Amino acid sequence: MIIVMSPSSTDEDLKRVENAVESRGLRCHLSKGEERTIVGVIGDKKQISQLEVNMLPGVEKSVRITEKYKLVSREFHPQDSVVDVDGVKIGAGHLTVMAGPCAVESEEQLMEAAKCVKDGGAQFLRGGAFKPRTSPYDFQGLAEEGLKLLRKAGDAYGLKVVTEIVNQNDIDLIAKYADMFQIGARNMQNFQLLKEVGRSKKPVLLKRGLCATISEWLNAAEYIASEGNMNIVLCERGIRTYETFTRNTLDLSAVAAVKELSHLPIVVDPSHGTGRWQMVQPMSCAAIAAGADGLIIEVHPHPEVALSDGSQSLTPKNFNATMDKVRQIANLMGRE
Amino acid sequence: MIIVMSPSSTDEDLKRVENAVESRGLRCHLSKGEERTIVGVIGDKKQISQLEVNMLPGVEKSVRITEKYKLVSREFHPQDSVVDVDGVKIGAGHLTVMAGPCAVESEEQLMEAAKCVKDGGAQFLRGGAFKPRTSPYDFQGLAEEGLKLLRKAGDAYGLKVVTEIVNQNDIDLIAKYADMFQIGARNMQNFQLLKEVGRSKKPVLLKRGLCATISEWLNAAEYIASEGNMNIVLCERGIRTYETFTRNTLDLSAVAAVKELSHLPIVVDPSHGTGRWQMVQPMSCAAIAAGADGLIIEVHPHPEVALSDGSQSLTPKNFNATMDKVRQIANLMGRE
Amino acid sequence: MIIVMSPSSTDEDLKRVENAVESRGLRCHLSKGEERTIVGVIGDKKQISQLEVNMLPGVEKSVRITEKYKLVSREFHPQDSVVDVDGVKIGAGHLTVMAGPCAVESEEQLMEAAKCVKDGGAQFLRGGAFKPRTSPYDFQGLAEEGLKLLRKAGDAYGLKVVTEIVNQNDIDLIAKYADMFQIGARNMQNFQLLKEVGRSKKPVLLKRGLCATISEWLNAAEYIASEGNMNIVLCERGIRTYETFTRNTLDLSAVAAVKELSHLPIVVDPSHGTGRWQMVQPMSCAAIAAGADGLIIEVHPHPEVALSDGSQSLTPKNFNATMDKVRQIANLMGRE
Amino acid sequence: MIIVMSPSSTDEDLKRVENAVESRGLRCHLSKGEERTIVGVIGDKKQISQLEVNMLPGVEKSVRITEKYKLVSREFHPQDSVVDVDGVKIGAGHLTVMAGPCAVESEEQLMEAAKCVKDGGAQFLRGGAFKPRTSPYDFQGLAEEGLKLLRKAGDAYGLKVVTEIVNQNDIDLIAKYADMFQIGARNMQNFQLLKEVGRSKKPVLLKRGLCATISEWLNAAEYIASEGNMNIVLCERGIRTYETFTRNTLDLSAVAAVKELSHLPIVVDPSHGTGRWQMVQPMSCAAIAAGADGLIIEVHPHPEVALSDGSQSLTPKNFNATMDKVRQIANLMGRE
Repeated sequence: MIIVMSPSSTDEDLKRVENAVESRGLRCHLSKGEERTIVGVIGDKKQISQLEVNMLPGVEKSVRITEKYKLVSREFHPQDSVVDVDGVKIGAGHLTVMAGPCAVESEEQLMEAAKCVKDGGAQFLRGGAFKPRTSPYDFQGLAEEGLKLLRKAGDAYGLKVVTEIVNQNDIDLIAKYADMFQIGARNMQNFQLLKEVGRSKKPVLLKRGLCATISEWLNAAEYIASEGNMNIVLCERGIRTYETFTRNTLDLSAVAAVKELSHLPIVVDPSHGTGRWQMVQPMSCAAIAAGADGLIIEVHPHPEVALSDGSQSLTPKNFNATMDKVRQIANLMGRE
Repeated sequence: MIIVMSPSSTDEDLKRVENAVESRGLRCHLSKGEERTIVGVIGDKKQISQLEVNMLPGVEKSVRITEKYKLVSREFHPQDSVVDVDGVKIGAGHLTVMAGPCAVESEEQLMEAAKCVKDGGAQFLRGGAFKPRTSPYDFQGLAEEGLKLLRKAGDAYGLKVVTEIVNQNDIDLIAKYADMFQIGARNMQNFQLLKEVGRSKKPVLLKRGLCATISEWLNAAEYIASEGNMNIVLCERGIRTYETFTRNTLDLSAVAAVKELSHLPIVVDPSHGTGRWQMVQPMSCAAIAAGADGLIIEVHPHPEVALSDGSQSLTPKNFNATMDKVRQIANLMGRE
Repeated sequence: MIIVMSPSSTDEDLKRVENAVESRGLRCHLSKGEERTIVGVIGDKKQISQLEVNMLPGVEKSVRITEKYKLVSREFHPQDSVVDVDGVKIGAGHLTVMAGPCAVESEEQLMEAAKCVKDGGAQFLRGGAFKPRTSPYDFQGLAEEGLKLLRKAGDAYGLKVVTEIVNQNDIDLIAKYADMFQIGARNMQNFQLLKEVGRSKKPVLLKRGLCATISEWLNAAEYIASEGNMNIVLCERGIRTYETFTRNTLDLSAVAAVKELSHLPIVVDPSHGTGRWQMVQPMSCAAIAAGADGLIIEVHPHPEVALSDGSQSLTPKNFNATMDKVRQIANLMGRE
Repeated sequence: MIIVMSPSSTDEDLKRVENAVESRGLRCHLSKGEERTIVGVIGDKKQISQLEVNMLPGVEKSVRITEKYKLVSREFHPQDSVVDVDGVKIGAGHLTVMAGPCAVESEEQLMEAAKCVKDGGAQFLRGGAFKPRTSPYDFQGLAEEGLKLLRKAGDAYGLKVVTEIVNQNDIDLIAKYADMFQIGARNMQNFQLLKEVGRSKKPVLLKRGLCATISEWLNAAEYIASEGNMNIVLCERGIRTYETFTRNTLDLSAVAAVKELSHLPIVVDPSHGTGRWQMVQPMSCAAIAAGADGLIIEVHPHPEVALSDGSQSLTPKNFNATMDKVRQIANLMGRE
């Protein structure tokens, strides 16, 4: 950390800052500029908080230099990680696609969707059995009945199953049916839930929060990793901005950022990321061209009757066309 | 809901939309403009989702006209609500102040803080025993030990206790020691936690999420209310914007908005809302002038050694000065 | 500036950075931490750009420590400035209110408005003769005819006139009729226009840009000041965020920020800042309580027929009620 | 426009709204729902403003249904436009690349850059002679001297020249040397400048404003078009969000949005859009995969000595590698 003293600070103020730093086993390194004195703090960054420093008299501001996450950083693990979900690999040159309806609604719907997902060439069936909804009066999902249907459809078509967990007490229940947990955007900083999936060793798909910085997202991944579970796949799904034409603003530069800062695989969700089915194909192509390891796409056999998120679902026909294009780009980018 | 047909839509498209609406027991009302046909949907708004409508062929867009929350709306309950926390009233003309350290650190610290909170004239002691922290390596709170200290300090100085709940399984534990639950910004859409505090009947302080719209915030309150708990106090604590000088952007217009849309009381947190102790006094005055029912302020007897959020804590001396000013403004605005 | 070297940087990289810094007459100060080496740059901050430094091999990032604006900074001029507009003072304990219709529409409208502005106790008549509009098909203002009406109404009621300039070639034209230039939000970084009003010596009301940081805003003021015109009043008018209930998010913490960073007076525009007339009174009160030196408010004698921005205009009756409340708070805060 | 009456509105309120609408030659279409009455406004949308409607008693809110821009809309002109810049085509299947240094610094620098731009296969040389800078103390460009160098370098290597105009009075000066005007992000709503370049018939590259919605951007293009100049190319260059790792958030979904809403070509600026040279290649690939008609990239022969924006410039070697990849993707996407 760098502590910037204000131009009007006194020697006594500086002394007080040095004492505060040194009392925690850290060292100070002074740099006297023409207008300001700057104190560099040397040592274990966990020992002092940026915020407490700011209240010391004479301190103008402090600037954090290094990130707190470690296990998920590329500095710690320079090679790309590969997450193995019961034989299906994510990361390091593989193209992985997860697809399916937003919510599981019925056996018929899910079986049809799973067939279409398999036909398109995806490896994972996605679908929500527990839905986090803005209003308590919206459809909340089929719960365990939905999980059973997901497993059945996954087995019938040879697809892995990924589904969202919203309640920390459902770990065992969901682990019984699914191959991979999904942590949704709204729960990205539900630290209790992160710790629970960290203690399980099942792979986790960690979506970026609606207004999470890349740093906060990687710190959330660190919560999972620090409990012993390194099977983490990140998922960019759009951030909240002032623009209202799209549901969210899909931040594809986050793909490049994650590749620079971390070794974890990253997939992109163009369905939630834009909220418009017309944009799913162009944004899928763009995501893979940007370096993403895969996609998670909403596909609905009959989107006109979907109970939720219909506006961002692809029809089977559009899904196939998207997959064709995506495979060509992945191939060009050196992915299988 | 209003459904806008695209200029190139066909009569068949329109028929399909009408069928979709009517098949759910709703009625359509057509309005043919010069460029576009608009379909008004009449009936129970829960029956059809805006998103599913958008995928029907020929639909350009749909616009929601009414909000989904009901119990917390002013339309449903025109008079201001008063939340009674074991004899201390929040709302409708009362000025309520909650103050204390960000995190409970030790008995000595908390007792000193409680004395200062009481001396300043606040009614509630606040302090975190369970802290949601961005990094797993940051101080996570004293847990039950912290709760015991809060209760002890509250009792010693005749203050109510409000503290954050981050784990749905801690309801009984926290209820044993605290007078009011706090739901933090990161958990505003942790729907499982909202339902749990809704089933308890204890008062709840519901902070606005970091990037929550006012509508989402009131829908979150509706989750609590729909489980039977109407003892809800909203708390504006700053939203995330592009500005970096302040930690968040305190949105005081949210106070006026809540007063228009809802009957629930609202308090303001200028400490987290700005992240700068220098701004706590002006923003406290502004919040009360804008119509807020109270404040929640970080006070630290020795902020220079605070383990978290020191930069936004007031010293006892500043807290007293702030309280003096705030009381004068509250008085002017007709609050006790 | 602080330059952070990456953990994998070499001695050669460091040497190259030192050379780049020193070749511009600046000095380096090294600080070797446990994980990273940090280079402090000492000397005139104009000589090297943060951005060019970032491309040097081995540089992880750079952090700017000091701001580039000088003349408008409190460091440069510790006392509050007072801007004198032909006898009416803004800043340092005065309460200044500017009010009037969004756009000048007719003599009748403006005379009525001016009467109401005067009756309410404001000192300035505001109104647009040149309107910057999102669409070329919206009403663009009465141009010189509007200016003449403003002058006439101002003279008739003893009010100063402030009006927006959108075209750098209109300086002389507007100076002929108005007492103060207004630079609108969309032109806050129209540097050519800033320089032109800087060369004139007439007072300038500089609105904050829709998504301008406080630092960019003060740098925009510096453009005016550096041309020799120190008669600058800042105006907070809401920033663009994800929230859609209000037209913009009024950032009252910017008032406290400006008071800390600069000596210039600051007024607040609750009309554009919220876009809702219902919020004008509470936000006016809040602005003054936060420390603002004044307000700029839209008042319309018959808002139901306003040609622009009607939804945020006050009726004369509401304006009077707002002024009463505002004066009481200003009085309490020690302003006349 | 749709006007939503509040549940508590009276018949008299409704009558007043109908009168206001009809007095402007528009017609009303009533739709009485269970909770609210909705008034559809039929006729020329220019006649009444959404904002003025909102102040009428009993009006809860109004919702705009159609956009105001017309000439630039796809509805008006269903086929993709091609902009011809003196023989070089932009749009409809062509891949156009503009490259060069951020600012023109010297003849030597520019000639070297132009050679590298040509060698990489780009068609346009870009470079700033007039630079809009946040601080008045930053380098403001070489002015006419810079324009002359641009023309000389363009001619020497057979490249078209595109350069930014920041002063409406420089139209003739810049037209003398450049083949295409660039309107920068900060001037996207400098309506005077838009009108001036609209009156000239020279092609215009219109960058999206820092926090402009897609609708505002297309309305800005409409300003140019409505003056008679249809030679407009849009440029997505990143928007301002809360994320700080990148300089801006490059919004590639804007490419898909523009393709849906407008017939104008669109190029992407990954250099300003991310502010990090490491991201230029992945984001260039992503932009073309998303459907962009071209790119504008900062290339600097010796980025370590660039006077501005060095951190986002590519070296010649990286530029060539980027162009190779981009061409392959363009080819796959059916562009030449």
